[in-house]
Amino acid sequence: MATATIIGSGLMGSAMAWPLADNGFIVHLVGTPLDGAIIESCKKNRYHPSLKRTLPDKVIPFDFSQIDEAIKDAELVVCGVSSPGIDWIAEVLSHRIRAHQLVVGITKGLRVEKSGTIELFPDVIAKQFPESIRNRVVPAAIGGPCIAGELAARRHTCVMLGSRNLETAKTIASLLQTHYYHIQPTDDLTSLEIGVAMKNAFTVAVGMAYGSLTADEANMNVHNTAAALFAEGCTEIGALVRLAGGNERLSSALPGAGDLFVTSAGGRTMTLGKLLGQGIPYQEAERMLAGVTLESVQIIREMAKALAVWEADGRIGPRSFPLLRALIAVIVDGKKQSFPFNEFFRGV
Amino acid sequence: MATATIIGSGLMGSAMAWPLADNGFIVHLVGTPLDGAIIESCKKNRYHPSLKRTLPDKVIPFDFSQIDEAIKDAELVVCGVSSPGIDWIAEVLSHRIRAHQLVVGITKGLRVEKSGTIELFPDVIAKQFPESIRNRVVPAAIGGPCIAGELAARRHTCVMLGSRNLETAKTIASLLQTHYYHIQPTDDLTSLEIGVAMKNAFTVAVGMAYGSLTADEANMNVHNTAAALFAEGCTEIGALVRLAGGNERLSSALPGAGDLFVTSAGGRTMTLGKLLGQGIPYQEAERMLAGVTLESVQIIREMAKALAVWEADGRIGPRSFPLLRALIAVIVDGKKQSFPFNEFFRGV
Repeated sequence: MATATIIGSGLMGSAMAWPLADNGFIVHLVGTPLDGAIIESCKKNRYHPSLKRTLPDKVIPFDFSQIDEAIKDAELVVCGVSSPGIDWIAEVLSHRIRAHQLVVGITKGLRVEKSGTIELFPDVIAKQFPESIRNRVVPAAIGGPCIAGELAARRHTCVMLGSRNLETAKTIASLLQTHYYHIQPTDDLTSLEIGVAMKNAFTVAVGMAYGSLTADEANMNVHNTAAALFAEGCTEIGALVRLAGGNERLSSALPGAGDLFVTSAGGRTMTLGKLLGQGIPYQEAERMLAGVTLESVQIIREMAKALAVWEADGRIGPRSFPLLRALIAVIVDGKKQSFPFNEFFRGV
Repeated sequence: MATATIIGSGLMGSAMAWPLADNGFIVHLVGTPLDGAIIESCKKNRYHPSLKRTLPDKVIPFDFSQIDEAIKDAELVVCGVSSPGIDWIAEVLSHRIRAHQLVVGITKGLRVEKSGTIELFPDVIAKQFPESIRNRVVPAAIGGPCIAGELAARRHTCVMLGSRNLETAKTIASLLQTHYYHIQPTDDLTSLEIGVAMKNAFTVAVGMAYGSLTADEANMNVHNTAAALFAEGCTEIGALVRLAGGNERLSSALPGAGDLFVTSAGGRTMTLGKLLGQGIPYQEAERMLAGVTLESVQIIREMAKALAVWEADGRIGPRSFPLLRALIAVIVDGKKQSFPFNEFFRGV
């Protein structure tokens, strides 16, 4: 039987064990040095404490100290860390990946280089590979609306799997596809990664709307405002994808509207947005959420750098991306929340 | 002071009184023959029983018997009925509209002619006008994510206002725009009306996902499935707009993703979807919801006719619009819910 190795036993990394096990893989689930308690529980009674679920029979938990043994026979390696771990996993893989292995990541985020170029996480991983490997292993990425616990519950889930090499994307998709995990391969890695990263940023805005809710005589909510911010978020994802030369239709598909919908259903990004929407300054909200990984903040900070470069070199005008700029004002510049509603939807 | 007349005192029609009154209009709110109890309450103590809110001072309630008096001095006439009333209001206006008046509708829906052409509601109204008027009054339409009670609560709300005549759209938008009601004029009436109608259809699918939720050991929801259906809905709205020669970017903006988001937040369309998602056949769900206006059902039935004609004449292939076809199967053909997830997102 084939082996798949997942590195990182957090929610999303671990959830990938379900479709892999259902497809007949022996799954090596390797904890990072921060995952000690999870792996200990898994080894003790096969119970995953964050997913609150017993592991499938074919999943074998490994401590990080056992990684060399866990990875050596893997057909497929899943990079299952969250964004602060991206450099760490790139280093871990750099001298362990072999030319016949497939690599796919679930980490959401992006970096912006001094030139304003967006660097994608699969490329962060690839560039640490020795040259002999880099020419043969093209890391792929999975993205789209997927709450980890729902994947492990085998709920119908549709995602995209992107690689600069379409054949690689198709191959990995075929290994992961099940009757509940529906995977669309694409070679438009850039659009996929921009969409799934930026949805974290724009979910903060949706959360801000709900956080700003105040009592009203007729008990009305603020769905109208949230929907306007949601739509402008999708529109700005489309514009970013267009700037990157990708297929902007993705903004109304899985990596745009779909992923923004699922992230807006709840979780830490919405929590941050709601705190900010209540008028709490970012620095204070950050203290209140100490210890929580906020991909959204890292992404908004990176995009602040990108917009500055793009505007300076004339790629964009000063009134473009009004919602992203409003988020930058709150999170990077520490300003009070203020949405320029009349500036929205001008790109359409 | 200028006068605006709203015909139809249901939720959305009545809510339009708030921005109009805030902009200085004397607002004549005219009940339809079905709105007797609402107008009676409004006349008695200025309390709107469905909006659960006191009318602004500048709003004057009228019975339908007073319509001639109520409409004659209006600068702007708002058609505030829901879709079953569209022929009725077209007849009401046909011999009462004068050449200097502006007309805007809030009714969501569409019809499909035998030729497969989509007929828009503003055109249903216009074609009943005498020829002398038809050449001078171009009915406009408002659409986008707007829960009526939230507009009356003066929550920030972004909508589009479409007319085949852009100047008309701009003029009406300027009369309605307030500090909380943000209006984007467009001459792409077709795309706007397709988007805001079809969001009702696709919300049924989102509701079906949530209705299908069954107990799970880790208490997991079905947001992944709902998000996939949401995204495919946006994608199919984009494809319909493209077929109609419109700007498909709207599918990730207000009449697409935004309107689908707000409709999915709750209400009768979600209720229908949830019943169907529980496995209740459509005929039974219809009986359970007797008396509730289900625009979604009318729209799905009309689109069943459209797809049949378009497929017969080769405009579309047999596997296009897989989600819309799945909805037609349940609602028109009475079949059991079944979503072809692997057919989704092929147009992207």
